[in-house]
Amino acid sequence: MAGNARRPGLSVTSRALALLGAFDSTHPTLTLSELARRADLPLATAHRHVGELVAWGALVRATTGHYEVGQRIWELGLLAPLPSGLRQIAAPFLQDVYKATSVTVHFAVREDVKALYLDRISGNDAIPVVSRVGGRLPLHSTGVGKVLLAYAPDDVQVRVLGGLTRMTRYSITDPEVLEEQLRAVRREGYAYTQEEMSLGACSLAVPVRNGCGEVVAALGLIVASLDAERTRLVAALEVAANGIRRSIGARSFSQ
Amino acid sequence: MAGNARRPGLSVTSRALALLGAFDSTHPTLTLSELARRADLPLATAHRHVGELVAWGALVRATTGHYEVGQRIWELGLLAPLPSGLRQIAAPFLQDVYKATSVTVHFAVREDVKALYLDRISGNDAIPVVSRVGGRLPLHSTGVGKVLLAYAPDDVQVRVLGGLTRMTRYSITDPEVLEEQLRAVRREGYAYTQEEMSLGACSLAVPVRNGCGEVVAALGLIVASLDAERTRLVAALEVAANGIRRSIGARSFSQ
Repeated sequence: MAGNARRPGLSVTSRALALLGAFDSTHPTLTLSELARRADLPLATAHRHVGELVAWGALVRATTGHYEVGQRIWELGLLAPLPSGLRQIAAPFLQDVYKATSVTVHFAVREDVKALYLDRISGNDAIPVVSRVGGRLPLHSTGVGKVLLAYAPDDVQVRVLGGLTRMTRYSITDPEVLEEQLRAVRREGYAYTQEEMSLGACSLAVPVRNGCGEVVAALGLIVASLDAERTRLVAALEVAANGIRRSIGARSFSQ
Repeated sequence: MAGNARRPGLSVTSRALALLGAFDSTHPTLTLSELARRADLPLATAHRHVGELVAWGALVRATTGHYEVGQRIWELGLLAPLPSGLRQIAAPFLQDVYKATSVTVHFAVREDVKALYLDRISGNDAIPVVSRVGGRLPLHSTGVGKVLLAYAPDDVQVRVLGGLTRMTRYSITDPEVLEEQLRAVRREGYAYTQEEMSLGACSLAVPVRNGCGEVVAALGLIVASLDAERTRLVAALEVAANGIRRSIGARSFSQ
């Protein structure tokens, strides 16, 4: 079996996983040969494993002949404890914020040096944003990201501050300016951005803590400007963050 | 390799998938020995494959020593086209309905003889319901289910009508009564339930059609009673369903 594999050291399980891992948000559909290439497997090997993955429901073959991730993986993913547990607890509170504010609401956790968006609520009249549930955005240019960065371990802060990418012309790329903002986040209890990720979109965000007081997530919203409404919007976020904290209680979500 | 497996005919890929398939909504966390038993694999075989699944991120080992579905599967599942494509299109319209009505909103598709809940919006003040995103409920006892059943192929209707389970004392278990209701759904354009799935919860639902006019999903909401508000609530659902239909446009979602 190893004889026909380009990566003979790779186990069969790993080959199947390599095929699943060939899909990402920029490659949601793949032909068999694209799949084989991205998984670094010979076509015949890929074909055999893909057949089993389709039979199980991990992949589906679309009418175009392309392969896509199957619904069974979606269902299985809903059992993942961090995203789905924390997200389920937070979901009704996000709804409350949306009902009170009618603007896009974000819920994110830190994953290394990125903000991972666990949930987003957005109506048809929302300002267009670049976030995507399951997607990642930089910590320094998003409201939820600045909150998560302000409470991240030192080594994470050092790495992020060492490479501040310009996302728009308003992104903060000076580490000293950002450090001052992170101190303000810890002092004031909320973060803001002004068109630092997308032009036309500003954000406000607050920390979400667990029962032990650790910051485990961030709750934010997107507005066209930060003018008059800031106090009211931050208050709505804080009420929701406190509600989430009480619902998390002694449960063991932590970063 | 086949020598130490209880199911020697099973390929290695299938063994890895059997381990993933051991998890479901009633078994979201499993010990290694539970995993091995549910996947019908010897402990040593299970241990080896589980190690690879953990290394890839498909499973995680919790501090308790139990295994859980990993975040990477959640992320991969978000790429599945039917749930995530249709759900993403529908999501802002569900928000609009929620904002207009402040009651729990459901979005479901038919999967064989069940309603599969793709999305649910629910605030903190909602009536408790048994639905779960990714979960399935009977077609005959839910509002979205009655809509999906009314437009299902004959063979599906025959199978469902042949075995009407009593979920509460108000569930419809007489096939003739249900058939009359399904005709009313097609005539009136909406379905209702009165405590047929959960006591204290009634529902209204309308069909969601694609660009070709085929019913591809159902949009519903949960209320404490069906009295005065029915016209207003059905109108809100219909506005949203029409919006989803326009957004689906010529895309190829179908049942």
